[in-house]
Amino acid sequence: MTFSLSGRGDRAGAVHAFAAPYLLFLGDVTEPGFAKTAFGLRDWAGDRCIGEHALPDATVSTGLARLTPAQAAASGARTMVIGVANQGGVIPPSWVRELLAAIEAGLDLVAGMHSRLQNIEELRDAAARAGTRLIDLRVPPPNLPVASGRKRTGRRLLTVGTDCALGKKYTALSLARGLGERGVDAIFRASGQTGIMIAGEGIAIDAVIADFAAGAAELLSPDAAPDHLDVIEGQGSLFHPAYAGVSLALLHGSQPDQFVVCHEPGRRQILGTAGMELPTIEAVIEQTVALGRLTSPAIRCVGVSLNTGRMSPKDANREIEETSARLGLPAADPIRGGVAFDRLLDACR
Amino acid sequence: MTFSLSGRGDRAGAVHAFAAPYLLFLGDVTEPGFAKTAFGLRDWAGDRCIGEHALPDATVSTGLARLTPAQAAASGARTMVIGVANQGGVIPPSWVRELLAAIEAGLDLVAGMHSRLQNIEELRDAAARAGTRLIDLRVPPPNLPVASGRKRTGRRLLTVGTDCALGKKYTALSLARGLGERGVDAIFRASGQTGIMIAGEGIAIDAVIADFAAGAAELLSPDAAPDHLDVIEGQGSLFHPAYAGVSLALLHGSQPDQFVVCHEPGRRQILGTAGMELPTIEAVIEQTVALGRLTSPAIRCVGVSLNTGRMSPKDANREIEETSARLGLPAADPIRGGVAFDRLLDACR
Repeated sequence: MTFSLSGRGDRAGAVHAFAAPYLLFLGDVTEPGFAKTAFGLRDWAGDRCIGEHALPDATVSTGLARLTPAQAAASGARTMVIGVANQGGVIPPSWVRELLAAIEAGLDLVAGMHSRLQNIEELRDAAARAGTRLIDLRVPPPNLPVASGRKRTGRRLLTVGTDCALGKKYTALSLARGLGERGVDAIFRASGQTGIMIAGEGIAIDAVIADFAAGAAELLSPDAAPDHLDVIEGQGSLFHPAYAGVSLALLHGSQPDQFVVCHEPGRRQILGTAGMELPTIEAVIEQTVALGRLTSPAIRCVGVSLNTGRMSPKDANREIEETSARLGLPAADPIRGGVAFDRLLDACR
Repeated sequence: MTFSLSGRGDRAGAVHAFAAPYLLFLGDVTEPGFAKTAFGLRDWAGDRCIGEHALPDATVSTGLARLTPAQAAASGARTMVIGVANQGGVIPPSWVRELLAAIEAGLDLVAGMHSRLQNIEELRDAAARAGTRLIDLRVPPPNLPVASGRKRTGRRLLTVGTDCALGKKYTALSLARGLGERGVDAIFRASGQTGIMIAGEGIAIDAVIADFAAGAAELLSPDAAPDHLDVIEGQGSLFHPAYAGVSLALLHGSQPDQFVVCHEPGRRQILGTAGMELPTIEAVIEQTVALGRLTSPAIRCVGVSLNTGRMSPKDANREIEETSARLGLPAADPIRGGVAFDRLLDACR
């Protein structure tokens, strides 16, 4: 890896943080879509993953070495990360034996599912005996503060979106990596469970009690050196009727100097609503500046990240060029990269 | 009482709801400021309070009949409400005997403090034996939904503010009562713990997990008859760096047709910040419309509620008249009432 994902361990207790290297647990997964977290870890934190462990029924693999928990521990692993989800987000009884084996091998366990490791008595007892930790990323860290609005040192960039689930995490990871490769002291800051698994640190902002959400966002990107850049993973959208409050708390607490708008060309309706119209990129820029200047008076948009995965290369390039020309801002698809992405990175420096 | 506080019981389980009449518990309070909740209940829900109960050391009284829990139960009381707070929001050991006496008399207990009834083992055991309920208003109801953004039937008015703690609850209560007296089918909807105690029903929005805050606000004011008006208690401020996310979730979930801006003349700085400047009433109107129209396209400001408690009657009247003239909207102090308040009520009809 050529970029730093986080300042691991410096705020343990205040944010979720866990130790590398990791063994990835795949359960009995047969559907690659349910192993997205494991693939994300392999792709973005490959240097911290030393192997995978699965039940005999699993048919999906990350391509990493197959290791039992005991073998992984002997090779230096510190944590087994549950890198797989299933419908309902539950931890099935068939996984428990393998989770116990990991605890007995001295590994901490990390999960981001709805059902909690802490609620399974066998795991709780075994972890207490072994002196290992059960880390549920959907349980917010204790003693989060109320936000103060105090301006912090260092620089911050936040990814925002025209909607949910269109590339805010991927964009933030790509920007942090690209800027790191160009010599910028940049760190990815995770605000969601998959991001936290990749970074090894963070707070799932949407799982925090509403009164403390902005305070949690303040903790996420602490004071830093003047030229240091935190690239903060956005959540939701200011135009989503269910999640705008979370997005606003994250915007206010992050106090970004810069933001990048993420958008999926062709998406017309807000996810999970009965036909609410997607806002334009222009409307998102205007609203983000209008609201963000409360805690960051000089906030500005530095570019646009387009998720063109469903378009042909030709259509994608045209969309990127037209968007850039229309807004007078760099636009790029980080997955396609190229000169357009170089220009977006230059604008973030 | 000439106005309806809530539609008690129709959504039990989804919102906090408890049964009248109440016995108000005052603990060992010697400082009237700490008994604000009890006074609020006496003033706004007097017909549902049949008495008060205090320890011998207490020197503050609501003026209601002094009844032991057993006497109150014999007179028909269903619930003992802890109407007093102390520094730290804890339940001191000296109260436990009286709380146990209430449980043994068959009363449910309601508390809105940081420390929870449910966490005191003796109370939990006693309530299990007696078949009574321990209701902690700071624990959100289970299984809250994610907001859908679906437009609901009926009319809604939300009180919003230039800051926290300047009269949004009092204004909503006054509007609901005043409109009820004028024949409007209006209900007060409580979004904070004191409001819930007064209404006997509601959800403390700021205590909800951020992802579900807008969903909780949708539950709070369900579908209703076309001419029915829910008067919803606002929280925080869109300009408060710690609470704007909560305010936005409440705005989106409430989908108000109308809103009233609450303001305290003379307040210059946002509460709890190091000198952040208070927004103007004009800025609050503009921002509330810009954000609120996502779920309520026809949203509009119908007036201003001024908290002039620290001003002379003459200064207060001048401030009310100047504000009304400047904005071209009715302005009033609900506590002072008068013609100005009549005009504000007319604008809400």
